[in-house]
Amino acid sequence: MHDAWIAERMSRIDASGIRKAFELARKLKDPINLSIGLPDFQPPEAALKAAAHAIASGANAYTVTQGIPELVGPLQARVDAEYGHPDRQVLITAGSSGALTLALACVVNPGEEVVLFDPGFTMYRHLTTLAGGACVMVDTYPDFRPTAARVEAVLSPRTKCVIVNSPGNPTGQVATATELEDLADLCRRRGILLISDEVYRSFCHDGPFVSPARFNEDVLVVDGFSKSHGMTGWRLGFAHGPRRLIQEMAKLQQFTFICAPSIAQHGGAAALDHDLRPQADAYRRKRDMVVEALTGQYDLPRPEGAFYAFPRAPWGTGAEFTAKAIEHNLLVIPGGVFSARDSHFRISFAVADETLARGLALLRELAQR
Amino acid sequence: MHDAWIAERMSRIDASGIRKAFELARKLKDPINLSIGLPDFQPPEAALKAAAHAIASGANAYTVTQGIPELVGPLQARVDAEYGHPDRQVLITAGSSGALTLALACVVNPGEEVVLFDPGFTMYRHLTTLAGGACVMVDTYPDFRPTAARVEAVLSPRTKCVIVNSPGNPTGQVATATELEDLADLCRRRGILLISDEVYRSFCHDGPFVSPARFNEDVLVVDGFSKSHGMTGWRLGFAHGPRRLIQEMAKLQQFTFICAPSIAQHGGAAALDHDLRPQADAYRRKRDMVVEALTGQYDLPRPEGAFYAFPRAPWGTGAEFTAKAIEHNLLVIPGGVFSARDSHFRISFAVADETLARGLALLRELAQR
Repeated sequence: MHDAWIAERMSRIDASGIRKAFELARKLKDPINLSIGLPDFQPPEAALKAAAHAIASGANAYTVTQGIPELVGPLQARVDAEYGHPDRQVLITAGSSGALTLALACVVNPGEEVVLFDPGFTMYRHLTTLAGGACVMVDTYPDFRPTAARVEAVLSPRTKCVIVNSPGNPTGQVATATELEDLADLCRRRGILLISDEVYRSFCHDGPFVSPARFNEDVLVVDGFSKSHGMTGWRLGFAHGPRRLIQEMAKLQQFTFICAPSIAQHGGAAALDHDLRPQADAYRRKRDMVVEALTGQYDLPRPEGAFYAFPRAPWGTGAEFTAKAIEHNLLVIPGGVFSARDSHFRISFAVADETLARGLALLRELAQR
Repeated sequence: MHDAWIAERMSRIDASGIRKAFELARKLKDPINLSIGLPDFQPPEAALKAAAHAIASGANAYTVTQGIPELVGPLQARVDAEYGHPDRQVLITAGSSGALTLALACVVNPGEEVVLFDPGFTMYRHLTTLAGGACVMVDTYPDFRPTAARVEAVLSPRTKCVIVNSPGNPTGQVATATELEDLADLCRRRGILLISDEVYRSFCHDGPFVSPARFNEDVLVVDGFSKSHGMTGWRLGFAHGPRRLIQEMAKLQQFTFICAPSIAQHGGAAALDHDLRPQADAYRRKRDMVVEALTGQYDLPRPEGAFYAFPRAPWGTGAEFTAKAIEHNLLVIPGGVFSARDSHFRISFAVADETLARGLALLRELAQR
């Protein structure tokens, strides 16, 4: 084939650094693996049963693109009750990444700017590039606060949207209600779309979850079942936002994702009322283990949500420290994967307590090089 | 929200005409529905069992993006045996539409041209637009032959790729080996990527299936389980082609689709050796019913594959004739959905014999207005 067959945009999209870490992990023999950003539990029993029943009862064909009524109906009712926005509509998507892919393709014209917080989830950068947009990074070191002031400083006439992710990957940071209100107000005042990625909303360790959609009717929310319900492989997510935008996303979904997998939709519908608190409590306890073990030896902004911590490397760069950790059979992700800076590293604590304890003990040793 | 939030590309992507027909169908009471382009059978028993087993045994998390070894391994071996191309690699995707979405995004730069046959599957047009490309339509009326001469006439320095779909939607046309060889040769000679959508390959009614990849090592093939294995809702497809291109598609899949649904991959792996002939025989018999019923009264190029026929409307435009059919409770799709011309209509014969017979009888009546 001809190298020129590959579109130019692909040269600006890297292979995932996380994937590289996974490949490293495969070479290690029984590593202490604190690199994997997915829950360590199975889907709720009700979801497993409903999915198996869907298969056996013939629910194996395309669904309508907006999602089966048994799923989209209750979600719409829940969203209506939570926000009371008359124009807010729900769309079932193939994971939250499916929702983000559709959203950015429906919104970003070539050359328009998308404001992203650094450090942040790598996918936002690549989906912006895919849509032909330019990423404008907002440095949030050392406290990782997604403040309106930091955003306002980078706005331009080309700014199309801002993506906020609270609780956030990779830092575990949770924005305060005031921070989110300020950000939502800024976006409304400046006529900018605010996209809120809320896939970790079930895991807020120190207070209730707050969405910026509470403060701005036009916020597009992206959410999913993967992280909250332990079904990352099922590819089930959803979005809710202004009807017009959701309808454009549904139009595009028809030609790309078609619909979320039918089996997963039936499974998800059965799990809507599943109690997520026991798992949230388990992650809060693990978060406390991390903070207790690393405080004093590591510069670590307290993770208030999700199942990540993002400490500063105690010596060297994030990559250098990560390489040393891997030499000791401990797998973490260098901060450069999520950031222009290479000073920190990410720990995922979605692992068994015993694994986490071994990893934390090793991190304490490694800090004292 | 602001109307200007919607990207310009979305104004060039229509809501699916097929979806509009589905919505019409919902208003009809027990229509004779010959509009639905999906198989009327369930997935093989082995797939149902394996999918249920995957759920119960905990295979509910992300898989590697290229697909689980149990699926990608045997498919790679099959592709290697069929083509013997040393550089040909397989990628598991979220349906064949997922593969097409990735392929066009990885290949088409803004302003580059994608050559498409008219009539043809609407998705190709929209995915080209999504990638920023321009569609160049090749009129194939009245015989629907995808000849190299017709393609050569529209090539330009901006031509990036050609998409061929044999057996084809909406016509049921199957290209001859000579036609495909000529097309494959033309593309090689001119340095153009040929994409072959082979989702209907199991349904060739009058001879063996032939892929243009037989004649050109660089052809990108898109295929899937939806149509052949009755699992449209499972979102399971695959692509195979030059390693470099497949790797770019895998890179993009990491940030968009992530992976094909885990449950579907396990189900598909168990169904790889399923005998597809009984279903193919059933569709051949239904095709014969269509040809026998309509010959004489309709101008109908003989459908040689898939489960579609594309007759010329016996009077009026395709839309006018379709509207009259709907008045008589018969649902077919106007040809304008698939074409710049509005002279034909599509019948899907993936329905029970009794339904098909009723539809065909009505079509014979309607022809004699």
